[in-house]
Amino acid sequence: MSKLELERVAANGLINRRHLLGLGLAGMGTVASTSLLGADAGLNLEIPGWSKQPGASASGYGSRSRFAEDMQRMAGNPNPLYPGGGASRSPLHQLQGSITPNSLHFERHHAGIPEIDPAQHKLVIHGLVRQPLVFSYEDLLRYPMVSKIYFLECSGNSGSLFGPNPADGSAQSLHGLVSGAEWTGIPLSTLLDEAGVDPDARWINAVGADAASMGRSIPLNRAMDDVMLALFQNGEPVRPGQGYPMRLFVPGCEGNISVKWLTQIKLTREPSHFRDETSKYTDTRLDRKSLQFTYPMGTKSVITAPSGQMKLERRGIYQVTGIAWSGRGSIRRVEVSADGGRSWADAMIDSHQSEKALARFRIPWEWSGGDAVLQSRATDSAGNVQPTRASLVTEKGNISTYHFHGIQSWAVNTAGDVANVYA
Amino acid sequence: MSKLELERVAANGLINRRHLLGLGLAGMGTVASTSLLGADAGLNLEIPGWSKQPGASASGYGSRSRFAEDMQRMAGNPNPLYPGGGASRSPLHQLQGSITPNSLHFERHHAGIPEIDPAQHKLVIHGLVRQPLVFSYEDLLRYPMVSKIYFLECSGNSGSLFGPNPADGSAQSLHGLVSGAEWTGIPLSTLLDEAGVDPDARWINAVGADAASMGRSIPLNRAMDDVMLALFQNGEPVRPGQGYPMRLFVPGCEGNISVKWLTQIKLTREPSHFRDETSKYTDTRLDRKSLQFTYPMGTKSVITAPSGQMKLERRGIYQVTGIAWSGRGSIRRVEVSADGGRSWADAMIDSHQSEKALARFRIPWEWSGGDAVLQSRATDSAGNVQPTRASLVTEKGNISTYHFHGIQSWAVNTAGDVANVYA
Repeated sequence: MSKLELERVAANGLINRRHLLGLGLAGMGTVASTSLLGADAGLNLEIPGWSKQPGASASGYGSRSRFAEDMQRMAGNPNPLYPGGGASRSPLHQLQGSITPNSLHFERHHAGIPEIDPAQHKLVIHGLVRQPLVFSYEDLLRYPMVSKIYFLECSGNSGSLFGPNPADGSAQSLHGLVSGAEWTGIPLSTLLDEAGVDPDARWINAVGADAASMGRSIPLNRAMDDVMLALFQNGEPVRPGQGYPMRLFVPGCEGNISVKWLTQIKLTREPSHFRDETSKYTDTRLDRKSLQFTYPMGTKSVITAPSGQMKLERRGIYQVTGIAWSGRGSIRRVEVSADGGRSWADAMIDSHQSEKALARFRIPWEWSGGDAVLQSRATDSAGNVQPTRASLVTEKGNISTYHFHGIQSWAVNTAGDVANVYA
Repeated sequence: MSKLELERVAANGLINRRHLLGLGLAGMGTVASTSLLGADAGLNLEIPGWSKQPGASASGYGSRSRFAEDMQRMAGNPNPLYPGGGASRSPLHQLQGSITPNSLHFERHHAGIPEIDPAQHKLVIHGLVRQPLVFSYEDLLRYPMVSKIYFLECSGNSGSLFGPNPADGSAQSLHGLVSGAEWTGIPLSTLLDEAGVDPDARWINAVGADAASMGRSIPLNRAMDDVMLALFQNGEPVRPGQGYPMRLFVPGCEGNISVKWLTQIKLTREPSHFRDETSKYTDTRLDRKSLQFTYPMGTKSVITAPSGQMKLERRGIYQVTGIAWSGRGSIRRVEVSADGGRSWADAMIDSHQSEKALARFRIPWEWSGGDAVLQSRATDSAGNVQPTRASLVTEKGNISTYHFHGIQSWAVNTAGDVANVYA
């Protein structure tokens, strides 16, 4: 950093980005390995082979660079007795922005990914309705649609942070069950209105066509709000791993209730108490009572870089970046600390920003080679503030591991190793 | 439509969507082939095979359904004497929302797609600067970035509509050189500031590492504005067809100046008059003078469905939908006509909406089986209104075919065939 005086906005190296940019970033010299060239004619760079002959032709469906193929979801089906049960986690530590490409969007399956022929798939709406209806995929493509950018998060995401000891993990392995996309679909209210909701109906019960017959109950008033029958993700038809040809999408809520491969909606007076909302997806409290139907995801943020299992190779300026989201509004503010929460500075929110969508935050940080604990804290438009891990565990206990949204602490040691800690 | 009275908002079938939704869409019965079921127990749908056994496991990098693989870019390298020259057009007629998946984003190449090893790639900034700089890919990943959703359009998009006779084409073949994505990159001003801009500098000259050495000149004041060095697209590294490992991105402007595979930026007093801004990408007027450096793309919209070469199989309600964009602001309004521009109704804008980004519009329309001419007309936040084709051709002539942004007319005949017409 030599002679420049950077404006410090919090302890242990956090820097005012506008001020940094105003300095012309000459201060970045220790990070950007720049080399002075002589006169213009002195540019003596070797001409690479790819500049000497034409490359590949245009294609119908593009693919990424072979040099970027290490960017993979972390996919596993951990239990051989539970075929098709498993998940794939987004490589949050490598992604940027607020949109996740469809191939890298997280997935969670309870009986694998069915290969559904849309021409054979049916959606039935029945139960407490004026007239039960059956819809084909072709029918549904002709209905009015809306397009919205939303996050989706598994309620089990970050669940290991309820544990007594911090797991050795990465942003991907610990927090990779969250992603963002633009979803296009039919407002569910449109289809329910067409079936004619009986005044006695209070719940919808949604069931998927996978072999798990994944089922969830959702209060009717929520189902009539911003819930959609999603047919497209980031412009193209939803992928098989996301519910092709159609899924429910319940913005801001635990991913599991956005039932994939949706084939049946039944309107009832009471919830169904499906297997997936009794044996799973309930929040058991310290008094051993279990809360069901705890849908909205908390106000949350995660620093994605620097993050767990990374190594800082040299001192100097880094861009601390991450994602923030809330099931109850948009992200209004993200603060970052480099000293384990004793001092905080506002990060910039640098991306698309809307209700129930991922927001990307960034702040420059100078690592001086000492110990540091990086944290981020989100505040949403409803005023909800992301809690510390300690207060969340005190409040909810750690019998069940759903809905963790506490503050993540990444410790940096003097060797530059970054690790998940409780701080 | 039977007994329901739909609220007409313009002639020849355009319908108030809010009113339509308020009716519970019972009026859609002629579109949605619904069937009444008996009692709940009467649901006698066959259980499909995919509901009976677990499907495929989670994967590292997902793929789409084999039933959706007909969704392809229209790719071609038309001239065998021009290896690697060509384009791939987005399937606009099949896409939804405002984000284009990376595999279906349009591309235009002048010497094919180079396969660049990022570890071997260099970006040089030189010319009228305090100190010439060389950046590696690794260096650049550590710089401050921003993420923004933008459209990108080739200046030759829709160019055939300058022709004397309407081409038989689809939304894809006629207009498919436009797409939308979230781009993440380093503000170019950050890098130029670091090199130190000489007070005499007025232009930057950007050159790509492809075998065409694609080069374009851009005024310095624009380069210091919202231009970025883009490294990520929709969250993942830009694809080879989009400039991997890095490209210039000039929001709102003709795609060609967002130089892909960027390897050199030279600051100069005067523009370079590269081959690609003299032999190509100039607008020759009727008086035979040619305008250079006509960067911003016009205020424009296209109806993507129903659109050219589609066939309406039956009378009833359709969702007229399309995309709108402007190089000079955000989209404030899109109007739709079903009678060739004599009467207009406001469509709903149903997607993400921001500066220099695609907006998705939709309006319901009842096709009664007669002749119709569907048109859309965009207005941007600066008050620019999309012109008719006739006024655009009168103003610009048709010697060169860049920057067509006139109103598209899709005629529907009594057989339901949809075709490009001049109306």
